[in-house]
Amino acid sequence: MSEIVFRSDVTVELVRCSAADSDVVFAARVSTVGEQSKDVVGQEDAGRDRGLIRYLMRDRHGSPFEHNSFTFFVEAPIFVFREFMRHRIASYNEESGRYREMRPVFYVPGDDRRLIQKGKPGAYDFYEGTDEQRELVQAEHRRQAEAAYESYRRMLDAGVAREVARGVLPLSLFSSMYVTMNARSMMNFISLRTTSDDSHFPSFPQREIEMVAEKIEQLFAEKMPITYEAFNDAGRVAP
Amino acid sequence: MSEIVFRSDVTVELVRCSAADSDVVFAARVSTVGEQSKDVVGQEDAGRDRGLIRYLMRDRHGSPFEHNSFTFFVEAPIFVFREFMRHRIASYNEESGRYREMRPVFYVPGDDRRLIQKGKPGAYDFYEGTDEQRELVQAEHRRQAEAAYESYRRMLDAGVAREVARGVLPLSLFSSMYVTMNARSMMNFISLRTTSDDSHFPSFPQREIEMVAEKIEQLFAEKMPITYEAFNDAGRVAP
Amino acid sequence: MSEIVFRSDVTVELVRCSAADSDVVFAARVSTVGEQSKDVVGQEDAGRDRGLIRYLMRDRHGSPFEHNSFTFFVEAPIFVFREFMRHRIASYNEESGRYREMRPVFYVPGDDRRLIQKGKPGAYDFYEGTDEQRELVQAEHRRQAEAAYESYRRMLDAGVAREVARGVLPLSLFSSMYVTMNARSMMNFISLRTTSDDSHFPSFPQREIEMVAEKIEQLFAEKMPITYEAFNDAGRVAP
Amino acid sequence: MSEIVFRSDVTVELVRCSAADSDVVFAARVSTVGEQSKDVVGQEDAGRDRGLIRYLMRDRHGSPFEHNSFTFFVEAPIFVFREFMRHRIASYNEESGRYREMRPVFYVPGDDRRLIQKGKPGAYDFYEGTDEQRELVQAEHRRQAEAAYESYRRMLDAGVAREVARGVLPLSLFSSMYVTMNARSMMNFISLRTTSDDSHFPSFPQREIEMVAEKIEQLFAEKMPITYEAFNDAGRVAP
Repeated sequence: MSEIVFRSDVTVELVRCSAADSDVVFAARVSTVGEQSKDVVGQEDAGRDRGLIRYLMRDRHGSPFEHNSFTFFVEAPIFVFREFMRHRIASYNEESGRYREMRPVFYVPGDDRRLIQKGKPGAYDFYEGTDEQRELVQAEHRRQAEAAYESYRRMLDAGVAREVARGVLPLSLFSSMYVTMNARSMMNFISLRTTSDDSHFPSFPQREIEMVAEKIEQLFAEKMPITYEAFNDAGRVAP
Repeated sequence: MSEIVFRSDVTVELVRCSAADSDVVFAARVSTVGEQSKDVVGQEDAGRDRGLIRYLMRDRHGSPFEHNSFTFFVEAPIFVFREFMRHRIASYNEESGRYREMRPVFYVPGDDRRLIQKGKPGAYDFYEGTDEQRELVQAEHRRQAEAAYESYRRMLDAGVAREVARGVLPLSLFSSMYVTMNARSMMNFISLRTTSDDSHFPSFPQREIEMVAEKIEQLFAEKMPITYEAFNDAGRVAP
Repeated sequence: MSEIVFRSDVTVELVRCSAADSDVVFAARVSTVGEQSKDVVGQEDAGRDRGLIRYLMRDRHGSPFEHNSFTFFVEAPIFVFREFMRHRIASYNEESGRYREMRPVFYVPGDDRRLIQKGKPGAYDFYEGTDEQRELVQAEHRRQAEAAYESYRRMLDAGVAREVARGVLPLSLFSSMYVTMNARSMMNFISLRTTSDDSHFPSFPQREIEMVAEKIEQLFAEKMPITYEAFNDAGRVAP
Repeated sequence: MSEIVFRSDVTVELVRCSAADSDVVFAARVSTVGEQSKDVVGQEDAGRDRGLIRYLMRDRHGSPFEHNSFTFFVEAPIFVFREFMRHRIASYNEESGRYREMRPVFYVPGDDRRLIQKGKPGAYDFYEGTDEQRELVQAEHRRQAEAAYESYRRMLDAGVAREVARGVLPLSLFSSMYVTMNARSMMNFISLRTTSDDSHFPSFPQREIEMVAEKIEQLFAEKMPITYEAFNDAGRVAP
């Protein structure tokens, strides 16, 4: 099965973006100014704008953070997509196992994936595991993926519909999607899908969706640096 | 592996329901009457109420159909849940493969599952398939499920975290969830997830989610018979 | 104009309710137990259930608080409804000024309404005001309401459409609506629409919508006392 | 009161836009192609792309129409905003009567506004009205606006808080907002807020919100001409 690809990473590309810190200021200013002020972020006003964004974040005025749009192309295993799509304030289009034949790309936990959990549900601590455990995990993932894909191909070759045959494929199968979110929804996503021990807003996501969230976070930080800074300083909770 | 269970059906139970045709009338009457009329569905008014519901459905006044609530307990394979959760106007709580060990219950296409598709994406026609094809499909599903579950158990027995080990499990694995929807959202779900050749509102769902949708439809019909009739007469499209 | 009614209060009635603390436990248990346990809140388990609800609230597991439904009948001035309907996770049906003639019920700030604001936008302090100020406010509200309603009637009597004539009516006009929300959305509403000086989650709502929110809060506390307690102990922020 | 402004029109400006027909194709192709094809709308493929968009519209595949974003600046009377904000799949930031003093801009029905309604709720026919009716309507709107604004100013001048004083202002008062929507939500808005006698999808909006919807429709048609054409050909109902 030389054609099978195994990956331990995920892909996040910013395909489309209409977002800037100045959009937040625009939208917020309509409350107090009430008319369109096109050049609102002038050189001299930068400090004032930063202050406004920080105030909005801290006082939970969330709507000014919605007038923007990020579209990402994401490739990740299906168990990650299952968690991602629980976020309802976003738009999704995913590769269809009904309309096309799935490509044989599968996830294998990488060498740095911590494999052992201790503690109670919702707040596990993770530890590295032994070499034997790592070898077992990687071998099992590879072998099951190969066997499942062979089974899938056998059914397709026998003329069985794709939507029927796909049932045997594992949750480690890679899929791809476009997802579009605004900054407010994205901050909620990042807040819940990156690790936080903060006593007010703890979160203990699975490492694989965190890998996606970290890439999204980096792109967010580049496009809206002042908003991103305010988000961090407000405890990384969405307004 | 005597412990493994194979199923070809799905479970839908109505756990909680606060819904009646009279709620639709209530909510709509506030527009035109503007005050609470508690006994709005009297014997003599039944005909008028039915007319009102039919008018609301036909003229796309959707909001009166939202003041009610259905909570279902659903058991179905993961590939069905993946489609179900694309419906964003609903509330979900699903069994977690991170917090608990998955039970070995797997889907196998039943004898009446049509296995062969013809036509183009989005409008396939399905045909029965030969005995050989059916035997192949059922054998492959059984064998892959058994092998995957053995692999999952080997990793768990070696001390590997559940969230890591689950990657090898197939999309045919059963999961369970609570889902809460209102009638408007439910009509949209039924409209898109049951087969329709209607030229205005065609839909060609995968058979397995249609099995879930049919059970939901039946429970909806029992609880809100006048609304259900109006929905059918308006071409089975949600208002 | 003896027919005109002036009110300084608001109405909130719980019309329909399908909600209990045990629903939260149900929905959450599916994550870890994965099957329906119908008698989940037994005598002996009350303490454990309370602990689970508090954990869910604190760790921002919001979805278990969505499998329930509250329908309220609300009467309040239009400027309150304008703020209320900015909450998008709810269902609304309001009296229509297009379909029916508006009844002459208007809001007048009561004797205890604080009339003077000091401080900066988003964090005003309010003070009582003098007797002269109160008399002015009440007299102006009464006089404008009467004049506007006479104007409205003159146009209706001349055969003008209701939707045209209503333009002269003031924001103090009472309207009525049904609104349906789940507990998660309701906690968000209460969090933002009742006063809080908490440094993490401050909120400074207008007094009139707070009057509505306080009545909703009381009904919520009656129906879901354990959830309500956990909400308060977690800083009154929605999970 | 020379400062008062009367308007019979509305303002809609496209402030930000990230939208093109090719985005729809992109998002849809991921279903069947499963990878990013950046130059998907080549010269030779234009016909194929048009066909795909028409198929998506007709068969109610709505999600590919969500990966785009339109931000409008809108000025309209408050009774229009009240209807607009019932559309929940959008982001709003409106001028605040709590944070700023409202400017005296008021709506007066123009000479071409049809003033007389006949028929039943939900399907009125509108007729022009006599000169006397028009003069009455315009005079009443002007006089009530002036009186209300004088009353508002008297309270402000006496030191009363803006949020209290605004209660006397009429529904004809202009407000302004930013609103952000995607094309799918916008088609739903246009479908419901422009007049249609189509037996499948009738709609009878109030003229003033239709004036807003027509401007939005024009901007949509410019930015996404193929999608717009498909929307019209599919009966002007959102997918």
